[in-house]
Amino acid sequence: MQEREGVPDLSIVFQSFVGYQKTEALRAAVDIDLFTAIGAGASTAQEIAARCGASERGVRILADYLVVHRFLTKERECYALAPAAAMLLDRASPACVASMVNFLASPQVMRGFARLTSAVRTGHAAGGDEALAPDHPMWVEFARSMAPLARMVAQLLANVLDAPAGGPCKVLDIAAGHGLFGITLAQQNPRAEIVAVDWTSVLALAEENARAAGVGERFRTLPGSAFEVDYGTGYDLVLLTNILHHFDVAGCETLLRKVRAALKPGGRAVTVEMVPDESRVTPPDAAGFALAMLAGTPSGDAYTFAEYERMARNAGFVRSELHDLVPSPQRAVISYR
Amino acid sequence: MQEREGVPDLSIVFQSFVGYQKTEALRAAVDIDLFTAIGAGASTAQEIAARCGASERGVRILADYLVVHRFLTKERECYALAPAAAMLLDRASPACVASMVNFLASPQVMRGFARLTSAVRTGHAAGGDEALAPDHPMWVEFARSMAPLARMVAQLLANVLDAPAGGPCKVLDIAAGHGLFGITLAQQNPRAEIVAVDWTSVLALAEENARAAGVGERFRTLPGSAFEVDYGTGYDLVLLTNILHHFDVAGCETLLRKVRAALKPGGRAVTVEMVPDESRVTPPDAAGFALAMLAGTPSGDAYTFAEYERMARNAGFVRSELHDLVPSPQRAVISYR
Repeated sequence: MQEREGVPDLSIVFQSFVGYQKTEALRAAVDIDLFTAIGAGASTAQEIAARCGASERGVRILADYLVVHRFLTKERECYALAPAAAMLLDRASPACVASMVNFLASPQVMRGFARLTSAVRTGHAAGGDEALAPDHPMWVEFARSMAPLARMVAQLLANVLDAPAGGPCKVLDIAAGHGLFGITLAQQNPRAEIVAVDWTSVLALAEENARAAGVGERFRTLPGSAFEVDYGTGYDLVLLTNILHHFDVAGCETLLRKVRAALKPGGRAVTVEMVPDESRVTPPDAAGFALAMLAGTPSGDAYTFAEYERMARNAGFVRSELHDLVPSPQRAVISYR
Repeated sequence: MQEREGVPDLSIVFQSFVGYQKTEALRAAVDIDLFTAIGAGASTAQEIAARCGASERGVRILADYLVVHRFLTKERECYALAPAAAMLLDRASPACVASMVNFLASPQVMRGFARLTSAVRTGHAAGGDEALAPDHPMWVEFARSMAPLARMVAQLLANVLDAPAGGPCKVLDIAAGHGLFGITLAQQNPRAEIVAVDWTSVLALAEENARAAGVGERFRTLPGSAFEVDYGTGYDLVLLTNILHHFDVAGCETLLRKVRAALKPGGRAVTVEMVPDESRVTPPDAAGFALAMLAGTPSGDAYTFAEYERMARNAGFVRSELHDLVPSPQRAVISYR
C-alpha cells in the first residue's frame, strides 16, 4: 500500500479489492494465447483478434487492461509485448511460465480462498485435507502447469548440489510431480539413478518427462503416499520439493525421520520450498505463500529456515543449511544425515 | 509489470496470477474487522484474534500477508495500521471504504469475471444482461457497499456544480442507488428538490439515507426502469451517475435524448463515470474499468470524453465539458441543453 504525497491512495485499496480481475485478465489472455499472437507479429486489436479467434471488442478491452498493468505497451492503436511478457508469457519463449495460471488460479485453489474468512476464524481450512487424498487430480494439473517454473528451479538446485561433478548417486524424489527435479539431476550427472514417489496418475506424467529428457532408463517410480510407501535404503540424496508446507510440524518431522532412515551415512535431504525470513514478512512471494497454506491445507505453513532446521534436528539430522535459488522465489534447505 | 535491473521480474507475473488472493485476504480482514481491531489498540496476533473472535494462527498468517502488501506494519510481533489502512479500512475512520469489497468482489461480479475468456472471444458477457433485470438484488448490495465512496464523490461533484450558491433547483437523479448524489446537493442547497429514479427495493434504501441526512421532505421517488418511467419535465439538473457504462452507444443516446426532453432550457445533464483518457490506457482505475464492463454487461464500456461528447451531441445537447473529481477515480461530464 503506497501513498502519493502523504495522501492515502484510494486507488491502492480499490485495486486490491479487485485483485481477482488481474488473475482473470491474465487467464483470459493465456487462454486465447494473446501474448503469443503479439509476439508473432499481430499488433492491432483486429489483427490479434483474427489470430486468436476472438472478438475485436473483447481483445481491445483486454489488451488495454494489460497495458494499464504494464504487460503490454500501446502506441496509437498498436500493442506490443513488454519485455517481461515477451520472456515469461509468450509460448514461443523457452522461459514461458504462462501455464502456471492453470494451477495457481485453479478452481480448487480459488475455492479454498473463497472460504478464507472461515479459515482465519478457525485457524484451519475446512476441507483443506481434500487435496491430500490419494490420486487427487489437482496434482496432475500441478505437474503439468508448474513444469516450466520447476525446470528453472531444478537447474538452480542442480547448480547448488554441483550435480555435474557427482559420482554414482542414488536419488529419491518424494512427491516428484512432474519429476523435473530428479530428471534435471539425472541429465547433469550420468551416474545418477532416480526413484520417484507420487500418486500413480502423476507418475505417468513424470515418466513421460523422463523419457523425453533421455533419462527414462535411470528413472524408476514408486507409487503411493509419501507417508506409507517403502522407500528402500541407501540413498545419497532425498528431494522433498514443495511437499512439507502441506503439513504441521509433527507431520513434517514424521516424514523427515522416514527420509533420514532411507539415507546413506553422509547422505543429504534437500527441501525446496517457499522459505520466508524469520520476520515472516519478507521476501514477498515466500512470505505471502503462508496464506495459500491457510486457505488450502488443514495446518500447513510457509516455514522459516529456523523452523526447518529445528524439524530436521528433531528428526535426527546433524545440521542444515539454507541456499537461495535466485531469481526463483524458492529456497533450498540441505540437511545432513 | 516492472523490471529489476533489466531482468524480467517473475514475481510480477506470479503476483498477478494470484491477484485473487489479495481480494480474498482483504475480504477476510474486513469480514473479521481486523483493521478496526488494530485501530482500537490490539497489536499482537493473540490480541487481534481475541478482539475479532478469530484464531491466533489465522490472524498471524493473514496479518503477515497484509504486511507483505503494506496494509499493515510489523515490529517484532506487533502489528500496526499503515496510514492508508487507518484512513480507508478502519471502520472508526469517517473515510472508511471497507464495505466496497462487498460489491466490487461480490459473487455476482466475480462470476462474470470467471467467464472472461468467453466474453473476450465473443465480445459480450454471456448472461451479462441479468443485472439489468428489474429489481435485481445486486443493486441493493451496490447501494449499501458503495455509499462511502459515493459520499466522497458526491461532495466533489457538489463543489463542481457550486451547489451552495444555487437558487431553486429541481434535480432528477437517475439510477439513484443510495441516493447520495441528490441528497448531497439537497443538503448543500436548501432550495433543491430531488426526484430519484431506481428500482423499488433500492429506493427504500435511498429514502432511508435521505431521511437520515435531514432532506427527506425534499426527496421524492419514481420507481421503475430509467428507460421506461415518465420523468416529468422542468428539471434544472439530471444526474446520470454510473449508469451509462452499462449500455452500448445506441442505448446511451436513447437515454440521453429522454433526459434532454426532461430538462428546462439551460438545464444540464451530469454524467459521473469512470472516464479514461482518449488513449484508453490512463488513468489506471478508469481505464481498467472497461474490463468490468466486458465481463459484466452485454455491451457496456468505459467511454472516453470524446465518446460522451458525441453521444450528448447526437442526443441534442449543445456542448459538454469534462471535470475531474480528484482524488476519486471518477469524472463528471456536464452536458448543456
